[in-house]
Order: sequence, then structure tokens, then C-alpha cells
Amino acid sequence: MSPRARKAIESADVVVGYDTYLKLATEVIGNKETFGSGMMQEIERCQAAVDLALNGKNIAVISSGDPGIYGMAGLILELAMQHSSDIRPEVTVIPGISAVSAAAALLGAPLMHDFAVISLSNLLTPWEVIRKRVEMAAAADFVIALYNPKSVKRVTQIEEVREILLQHRPATTPVGIVHHATRPEEKQVIATLDNFTQEFIDMFSLVIIGNSQTVVREGRMITPRGYQL
Amino acid sequence: MSPRARKAIESADVVVGYDTYLKLATEVIGNKETFGSGMMQEIERCQAAVDLALNGKNIAVISSGDPGIYGMAGLILELAMQHSSDIRPEVTVIPGISAVSAAAALLGAPLMHDFAVISLSNLLTPWEVIRKRVEMAAAADFVIALYNPKSVKRVTQIEEVREILLQHRPATTPVGIVHHATRPEEKQVIATLDNFTQEFIDMFSLVIIGNSQTVVREGRMITPRGYQL
Repeated sequence: MSPRARKAIESADVVVGYDTYLKLATEVIGNKETFGSGMMQEIERCQAAVDLALNGKNIAVISSGDPGIYGMAGLILELAMQHSSDIRPEVTVIPGISAVSAAAALLGAPLMHDFAVISLSNLLTPWEVIRKRVEMAAAADFVIALYNPKSVKRVTQIEEVREILLQHRPATTPVGIVHHATRPEEKQVIATLDNFTQEFIDMFSLVIIGNSQTVVREGRMITPRGYQL
Repeated sequence: MSPRARKAIESADVVVGYDTYLKLATEVIGNKETFGSGMMQEIERCQAAVDLALNGKNIAVISSGDPGIYGMAGLILELAMQHSSDIRPEVTVIPGISAVSAAAALLGAPLMHDFAVISLSNLLTPWEVIRKRVEMAAAADFVIALYNPKSVKRVTQIEEVREILLQHRPATTPVGIVHHATRPEEKQVIATLDNFTQEFIDMFSLVIIGNSQTVVREGRMITPRGYQL
């Protein structure tokens, strides 16, 4: 957590967030008033934050990672903008260390070259749109970072991704899988495009698929930037 | 700067980095020994860091933003791996807040949906490879973040990017341009795909091109995640 994010929480009247994230931030939140809710209740939670702000409270809405990458920044701004400028709460987005940056650091240096970030969750986006993005990113030799790669109910998409990528890259292409980066239970494994879907993958995993130049050296995944060494 | 990055610098014997970044971190570095060098001297600088580490020193190599995204993490790992395991220095990559996260936060919430990160610098990558990535990312409706969009000598690529994007997205698509995000001189402007290349853009700019859904509301650039409000 950046010092700026910490200060924002410390100066807030109320801290709003997904229950799990409120728990992770207990040490910073202390005895402050909180408003938490469960998964899939993003609109309710952000609406509560905006309503509290309309009543003159200073609110900190927390996300894990970077609130600007698949986080709550967009929803908060959209809800705030529904109010006219004379009453609209002021919104400041404080950037954080994204899950993809944290995962990459654990794996080595897989993001040294152009990359695409794709969420495989089709709750809010049609699968055909996501699938096309995977196809184009594969064809253009992007390193590909996958958020929400798999859930208990959604297990086929990651297999489709593997099949698409195998049409464009060798079966030996390194694939890193990271769980809970920066948390005490963090762990990572480096597999290959051929076999990575046999590893444990869930909603808390971040998957990084190398490009055609990515190598594994002594357990670290490295995408060369292109320097002649 | 994260508390973890600060601690790493504080516990280092020598701090290595691009001269400009060493200056930016003066307050943390204090009176420590430093090794700085200019732009384009990345190999020399990283080699010096590895050599110092081989001599038993604890070295902190600093990048701006996230060292794992177009930063020094890859080069340091590549150089360290050239040594056999009995003498090879241990390398830890500490993730940071990337320039793209910092720029997005200033603009609003443009990265709420799938995005591609592309460097337009063709010093180490053939322009045809970069151009194909822009074409595929445009076709797949990715939000597109551009690092190194333009330099004094390299001015045509950003115009080519604009022309490619105009084949896939409306001329009114929002484009955000951010300079020096998180530094005292930070500033941002939101233009459109049609006219953004008329804005001031240089090597210190980060350009974020919206996808087909991105909107500007009250001066903030927002890519909706897809929630029904």
C-alpha cells in the first residue's frame, strides 16, 4: 500500500469495500466506521459510498491492487457523475500496485515487452468479445496477462485460451501462474503453454503467458527487451 | 514509492539508476554511495550493479514506475543469470505503481476493461512488429496505452497509430495524454482520436486511447466495466 493510499484511509470518515479487503486492511482502518459487502455487490457498495459522500462524509473506497484496473474507480466515477455539479462529490483516484505488476515481479520479468491484459470473466462481457481479444493478442505476439482466469462454475474458457495460443506459439512457451501475490499465502508456478491448465487455477490466480521470446532461466520467467548482451 | 521499495533502498550499500531517477529519490537515498548513468546506458548501469553485487554488496537498482514494465528488472535478471549458481547474486524484483496506472488515475478510470500496453520506441523492436500490435489491439477493441509515444527524432509513428485506430473507432473516441504522472509537474489533457496528435506529446508522455465504450464525463475519462446502472 502506497503512503498516499494509507493517508487517504487514515483521513477518511468511513471506509467502504469488499468485506475481504476491509479485513486485509484492518491495521490501517483501525476503529473507523466501515461499510462492507460481499462479492457481486459492487453497485450497492459504491452507491453507499457516493450517498455517504453526498451527506458530507469523507469516504475511502478500497480495492485490492490498483483501483483503476478492473477495480472500483470507474463505478464510483460513473455513480458520482449522475449528480449535478453543485452537489457532486469530488472523486480522487489513487493508483496502486496492480495485481499484474505484483504477479510479474514474483515470476521474474515477464512484462518487459508489450502486453495485453484480459479478464476472462464473462459476467459483464460477452465471451465472443473476450475470445476475439485473446485471438488478436495471440496473433500479435503480446505477452498476455489473464485476470479471473477460471472459477468453480467457469472452467472451459482457459482451455479455449490455451488452444488459441497453441495456434500461434510453441507448446514450450512459458506460462506463469500466481496466487495471492503480496499476501502471506502468495505462491507461483511456471509451466508451459502445453500443460499449464493442469495446474491449480482459480479466481484468485493471475496467469501470464509469455510471448515468442520469453524464456525461463533458473526458475525466473524473463521476456527480453531486446538488448544485445 | 511503496514502503517495501523504500526499505530496499534504505538497506542497500549502493543505489544504481538513471541519473534523473537518482535525483528524484534523493530524499530516500540520503548520503549513500550511488552509481548513475545517462539514457541509453542501461546495459552499462545494470552490469555495474551486478558486478557490485558479485563483490558482496547489497545493491538497489531503481526504475521509475514499475521496474517490471519496460524497466530494469529483465536486464538485471538476464545479466545475473550469466553467472553460475554458486556466485550468482540473488535478485528480488519489487513491484511499483506503473506509469500506466498513475496516468490512468489522473485521467479518471480508462482501464476498467481489457487493455494493451505498447511501446512505440523502435530502438529495440522493428516498427513492423509494433505496427501489427497496434492493428490487432485496435481491431480487438482494447483500450490502448502507449509508452514512448514520440521523441524529438521519432514523430511519424504516433500519426500512423492515429490512422490505424481511425479505421476501427470513431473520431470522437477519447484519448488521454499524461505528462510526468505523480511528479510535481504532472499534467493531463483529454482529446479525441481525431485531434490528439496536435497536443504536446514527448518521451515523457503516456497516451491512453479509449475503446469503443469509453466516455468523457465532466472532464474524466471512463471506460465502463459493463454494470447496468
